[in-house]
Amino acid sequence: MAVAETRLSNIDGDAGELVIAGFPVEELAANATYEESVFLLFEGRLPTETELSSFQSTLAAQRTLSDPVHTVLKDAANEGVTVMDALRMGIAVATIGHDLTVSKAQAKRLVSVVPTIVAAYWRYRMGKAAVAPREDLGHTANYLYMLSGEEPDPAAVRALETYLTTVIDHGLNASTFVARAIVSTESDLFSAVTGAVGSLTGPLHGGAPGPVLDMLQQVHETGDPAAFISERLAADERLMGFGHRVYQTRDPRAAVLERATRRLTSDDDDSTFFNTVERFEDVALRELAEHKPDRALKTNVEFYTAVLLHTIGIPRVLFTATFAVSRVGGWTAHCLEQHDANKIIRPASQYVGATDRTWTPISER
Amino acid sequence: MAVAETRLSNIDGDAGELVIAGFPVEELAANATYEESVFLLFEGRLPTETELSSFQSTLAAQRTLSDPVHTVLKDAANEGVTVMDALRMGIAVATIGHDLTVSKAQAKRLVSVVPTIVAAYWRYRMGKAAVAPREDLGHTANYLYMLSGEEPDPAAVRALETYLTTVIDHGLNASTFVARAIVSTESDLFSAVTGAVGSLTGPLHGGAPGPVLDMLQQVHETGDPAAFISERLAADERLMGFGHRVYQTRDPRAAVLERATRRLTSDDDDSTFFNTVERFEDVALRELAEHKPDRALKTNVEFYTAVLLHTIGIPRVLFTATFAVSRVGGWTAHCLEQHDANKIIRPASQYVGATDRTWTPISER
Repeated sequence: MAVAETRLSNIDGDAGELVIAGFPVEELAANATYEESVFLLFEGRLPTETELSSFQSTLAAQRTLSDPVHTVLKDAANEGVTVMDALRMGIAVATIGHDLTVSKAQAKRLVSVVPTIVAAYWRYRMGKAAVAPREDLGHTANYLYMLSGEEPDPAAVRALETYLTTVIDHGLNASTFVARAIVSTESDLFSAVTGAVGSLTGPLHGGAPGPVLDMLQQVHETGDPAAFISERLAADERLMGFGHRVYQTRDPRAAVLERATRRLTSDDDDSTFFNTVERFEDVALRELAEHKPDRALKTNVEFYTAVLLHTIGIPRVLFTATFAVSRVGGWTAHCLEQHDANKIIRPASQYVGATDRTWTPISER
Repeated sequence: MAVAETRLSNIDGDAGELVIAGFPVEELAANATYEESVFLLFEGRLPTETELSSFQSTLAAQRTLSDPVHTVLKDAANEGVTVMDALRMGIAVATIGHDLTVSKAQAKRLVSVVPTIVAAYWRYRMGKAAVAPREDLGHTANYLYMLSGEEPDPAAVRALETYLTTVIDHGLNASTFVARAIVSTESDLFSAVTGAVGSLTGPLHGGAPGPVLDMLQQVHETGDPAAFISERLAADERLMGFGHRVYQTRDPRAAVLERATRRLTSDDDDSTFFNTVERFEDVALRELAEHKPDRALKTNVEFYTAVLLHTIGIPRVLFTATFAVSRVGGWTAHCLEQHDANKIIRPASQYVGATDRTWTPISER
């Protein structure tokens, strides 16, 4: 059942097609910067040069976090909470001192602040000082800069731009739906995104790229994808990174991320790793087709998400949070869309419990 | 469409009946303590004396907040954020140092900690020190104690027990649905309740009892309900506290709360206020039936929520948060129910946007 109309993205699972605000994902992700993609979702069209420059400045100007957010991130780091838990706390606290009226301005502030929270928390967890954002860097470059403290390689930035656009929106997935449901009570965007981040913490939604990397690194060490895959399938175990609840084909996002990663690799170690990855995928697809002919288990987005993020040097524990760095654009765009033509989202439940019970005093129970 | 089965509560809007875990709300709310009601939702039956005593001790033992939560509440108080925003932050941060596995133990911790966050924040906002919880007091008495620093009157405690049970659960309302959707990704209960609190911040869901009190106090000053009501209806304005999207009758919870409030009142000022309230309701129901005969505008729960909470001395700005102090029992029970037979909640959307767009370089836009 459709609970909302959207102009933001559309999935054709049988054809293996994803459209983002009118563009096939391949077309958009190969060309757009993250700022262009967010502008596209918020405004329904690509920005002119002047508009993009103004949009970039607005985002760049509000990347810093208030002291209470830094305090809570440091407290969280002392206790070693997960990055996603820290992100949820950071967003919840980032409202202090800010107007909570639903607006594009609030949406932009959220898009700006999420990478800073992730990077600051990561630095604190590593026992380092946070790196202050730099207004002269683009959104994507600045995220990498805040993680490492070093100006990033342009090729890595371009690959990450492609990733951030590729996963920016994907229909009414669980976290996006939560965000829309929250804003449908006329609540604010920070509440909605805090809820969305909470739902992304669950392993059924945001958690798979990390385990994919573990698997690929293990296989890369042994150098024998075929043996690993046969063993798994013989034991009737799931192969991470294959199969999707909507796509019956290879996930169109996998192809985009594969191309972006290939562009980054040469003859160094990463390339060797990338060769393992491609051999793994070939064997896996062949074996899955043979062993599970009734199920459409094709490469999904998480497989090449793991490969791309690892190749550009993003630590494994930041994979889901980096997904959130992208998806906050989609979440806030959905919230604005919901807010513009709002109807409270309140589905029904079916009562299957008792009725007509009567009270028994506690001494007689 | 029903998106979940539940044994927790059932609403018959035409008959004006609410069943909570098998009990008509009138039967349960007149008898149960809050701890008994939470036990009932978690276990599906009332506790024995031994079970209740153990349940109370468990709740009482984990009411305190960690230092990071106090820090964030103080920071929030310095900036004067709303109580609901502070509650969202407090719950988000209260996970620091705690295992996030979904369990009844986690649900109990949430139930325990929500009143402490509300009360501590309220004290900080008033420029006072927080009052540490007392393990020797019941859940409801302790909440009032933490607000005022004084041991509460048993009659006020009993009235608040009735309120906390009356609104503990109400089908799949917006916030409960958000909580279930978050936990359906196998996320944790703190994430779910943080999201639920966020949705309760919206005026369409949690915001009405405060304005009802404003209206009743204004009328009490003028002493003329009839004039106020005629004026409003003549101007085609909404009368706060009447009408409900599900109930076509007087909200069954209104009757329960009215009786509980009446028991509290005598010949003092509160009683005079209560007399105004009852006159107001009589006139309003008569006038609404005459002026809007096609609409079933009967007294809703918010009307007597305002009257009851005001009568026991809970400040108006804490009305929605006090609702959350109750509803956290329902939210967590729904989350446990969802978790026990989980299927990810992910409704569909209908794409109404463009397709087949092609990329235009920025210089040509």
